[in-house]
Amino acid sequence: MQRRKVLGLAGAGAAGVAAAGAGALALTRHDPEPVATSADAGGAIPFYGRRQAGIVTPAQDRLHFCAFDVITDDRAALVEMLQDWTAAAARMTAGRDAGTFGAVGGSPEAPPDDTGEALGLPASGLTLTIGFGPTLFRDARGRDRFGIAARRPAALADLPKFPRDALEPAISGGDIGVQACAHDPQVAVHAIRNLARIGMGKVSVRWSQLGFGRTSSTSRSQATPRNLFGFKDGTRNLKAEDAALLDEHLWVQPGDGPDWMTGGSYLVTRKIRMLIETWDRSPLSEQQTIIGRDKGEGAPLTGAREHDEPDFAAQDGAGLPVIAADSHLRLAHPDQNGGARMLRRGYNFVDGSDGLGRLNAGLFFMSYQRDPHKQFVPVQSRLAKQDALNEYIRHVSSGLFACPPGLPAADDHWGRALFA
Amino acid sequence: MQRRKVLGLAGAGAAGVAAAGAGALALTRHDPEPVATSADAGGAIPFYGRRQAGIVTPAQDRLHFCAFDVITDDRAALVEMLQDWTAAAARMTAGRDAGTFGAVGGSPEAPPDDTGEALGLPASGLTLTIGFGPTLFRDARGRDRFGIAARRPAALADLPKFPRDALEPAISGGDIGVQACAHDPQVAVHAIRNLARIGMGKVSVRWSQLGFGRTSSTSRSQATPRNLFGFKDGTRNLKAEDAALLDEHLWVQPGDGPDWMTGGSYLVTRKIRMLIETWDRSPLSEQQTIIGRDKGEGAPLTGAREHDEPDFAAQDGAGLPVIAADSHLRLAHPDQNGGARMLRRGYNFVDGSDGLGRLNAGLFFMSYQRDPHKQFVPVQSRLAKQDALNEYIRHVSSGLFACPPGLPAADDHWGRALFA
Repeated sequence: MQRRKVLGLAGAGAAGVAAAGAGALALTRHDPEPVATSADAGGAIPFYGRRQAGIVTPAQDRLHFCAFDVITDDRAALVEMLQDWTAAAARMTAGRDAGTFGAVGGSPEAPPDDTGEALGLPASGLTLTIGFGPTLFRDARGRDRFGIAARRPAALADLPKFPRDALEPAISGGDIGVQACAHDPQVAVHAIRNLARIGMGKVSVRWSQLGFGRTSSTSRSQATPRNLFGFKDGTRNLKAEDAALLDEHLWVQPGDGPDWMTGGSYLVTRKIRMLIETWDRSPLSEQQTIIGRDKGEGAPLTGAREHDEPDFAAQDGAGLPVIAADSHLRLAHPDQNGGARMLRRGYNFVDGSDGLGRLNAGLFFMSYQRDPHKQFVPVQSRLAKQDALNEYIRHVSSGLFACPPGLPAADDHWGRALFA
Repeated sequence: MQRRKVLGLAGAGAAGVAAAGAGALALTRHDPEPVATSADAGGAIPFYGRRQAGIVTPAQDRLHFCAFDVITDDRAALVEMLQDWTAAAARMTAGRDAGTFGAVGGSPEAPPDDTGEALGLPASGLTLTIGFGPTLFRDARGRDRFGIAARRPAALADLPKFPRDALEPAISGGDIGVQACAHDPQVAVHAIRNLARIGMGKVSVRWSQLGFGRTSSTSRSQATPRNLFGFKDGTRNLKAEDAALLDEHLWVQPGDGPDWMTGGSYLVTRKIRMLIETWDRSPLSEQQTIIGRDKGEGAPLTGAREHDEPDFAAQDGAGLPVIAADSHLRLAHPDQNGGARMLRRGYNFVDGSDGLGRLNAGLFFMSYQRDPHKQFVPVQSRLAKQDALNEYIRHVSSGLFACPPGLPAADDHWGRALFA
């Protein structure tokens, strides 16, 4: 599925190409359930469906995440922008550009309707997933700008401050979060940039993050990738195929909170700087002890294969636990956290260097869950206090977003239920 | 060609895998001329050859560029590091990991010989291209630390300051530059990171830059990509197939300067921030006038097809030039610059946001040429003074590197001729 090429048609004049018009919607609503859809590198993933795409969708290779601040107090303007965003998202995830370069309305004297840098590129598995942050419901000055404070779910209460947090406010939080995932980063960047363009005067970019390599699998069809510590990450992740577990741990159930979130999920983002140069100087044995797994296979230190169950009771000859008490594997394991599980969807990042001779690199952690205060918070509380890995990492940004269920039909739009 | 998987072999102990040893070199020296090699997404590009790979090699999709400062004054230590780098580069571009995770020498008590995050990934068209900056020959304090000041080519004289330059010293310059290009960014990042690891104590990362989408074609086998202004970029680029033009404009010829650079090329890097939000508010007609081409097809405004020759004499009904006097196309065109041409190899970047509600995005410009002072400098001087595009761009970083010819055989190493 290729973006319509205006190129040859437009010629030097570059105007006057008929828009796809009414035919467009039909392209985007043929699958109500994107859950099990696996797109090849060029394919399109359905935008409409019971769930938002981009959560259990097999994790694409690249990420552009953007947190926006709403800079208008005008509720109607915000809702109108969300409608415009929805139409643009449906179009872009289907691999179609507005493509008329200003000619909608007929005039090349207007700014183009699409920035153009993805022209000719396929849909590339693009998904756009929206979430609403706590500050949209009540801002930092305590104002309920949009009359929705009463609709804020309890699960969207601010995250607590964790020990060792080194959060930078300028790259944390946000009123609205949009996760763009695609196999081609140009397509993901294009999508975020065009949402920013459409939202001009209503939203501004608070922070954004590029991720170049996925660190989790969200489907059994995918192998477990590696993070920048060189270890496989997300071996025990929730997977799209585990329907019962997803209802238990991922999707908001009826009665959990306000109806507008039923069928949705909560997203936690944490930018975790990794001190990779220090890590790279650590002996292999120490790295493996810290993680609790071997580096090659990714097996727990009590096993031989990646998916072997760890034996937390096993002791070595000296009577010490084989999987150390402060190892990442033990502390993060569901059995050690009252069964708490999350669907992780993180990405590796490198943001240049840090001015101190080191790469500014790490993990942009993202997890989706039914209630962050019952899942992410208890796990992170334990990790922040005890994890041996803390010597090598630093949490520098944090975000929390309520991601509603999907839009079942093309006459629906982002935020409709929330603002109804 | 797959990286050797230690995984299954290593098991929980993760040690004791025999190194590839003597067989390794044979894998990497079968092609003396990488120029015309086109790799599929997973393929390996020969490291050894008459030219360095990564210059006319069909531009890969992703970039990680790194400028290093040499932090030792010990010439022998620097040369030894370059030897180690060469061996690592040959291995990584062939898609092989050290793969023994510390077991070379036998002990898991040593840091691993490879950071591991590319384990299991194919070579992905990785190329590593090295260049030496002016400060390696004489540092900012005037010191000739390595006894090579007399070998500095005239062509490596510092670039002049151009009008409107807004260069940040911390992300400019560098003693050594390494360009890693690959189809998988994880592979490019892994390569730079492992060179940094190997160079610990001898070099430190001065600055680094990720590029997510190529903006130029270096082969007729590639379509012209788009930059973040949404326009096709590099339509008239030098191409691998134009052997005579490459000798004239790209490769250093005998007698041009010191012998160690004959057959090499000079690299100019410029990080160009694009004010894309301002651009996105400009009418299509204005964008096209500024560039001198139409946005859809990429044709000059006097033509209909991308590769049509521009007619700089053509006038519109009012007697004004169709291709404006201050258009980017006219000012950068070889006919307007005494025939000066370069091989461009730039990439789009997004480095998060700028704290002012905008994406920090643009073009990481890279050009290779026979003599930057006869090619890049005169063109950029004209552009910096007159280009209508200047309202939308800002040059924030600059680098200049002398890239020697390739290593013809596996007993050669980076910098051998320079330090001979």
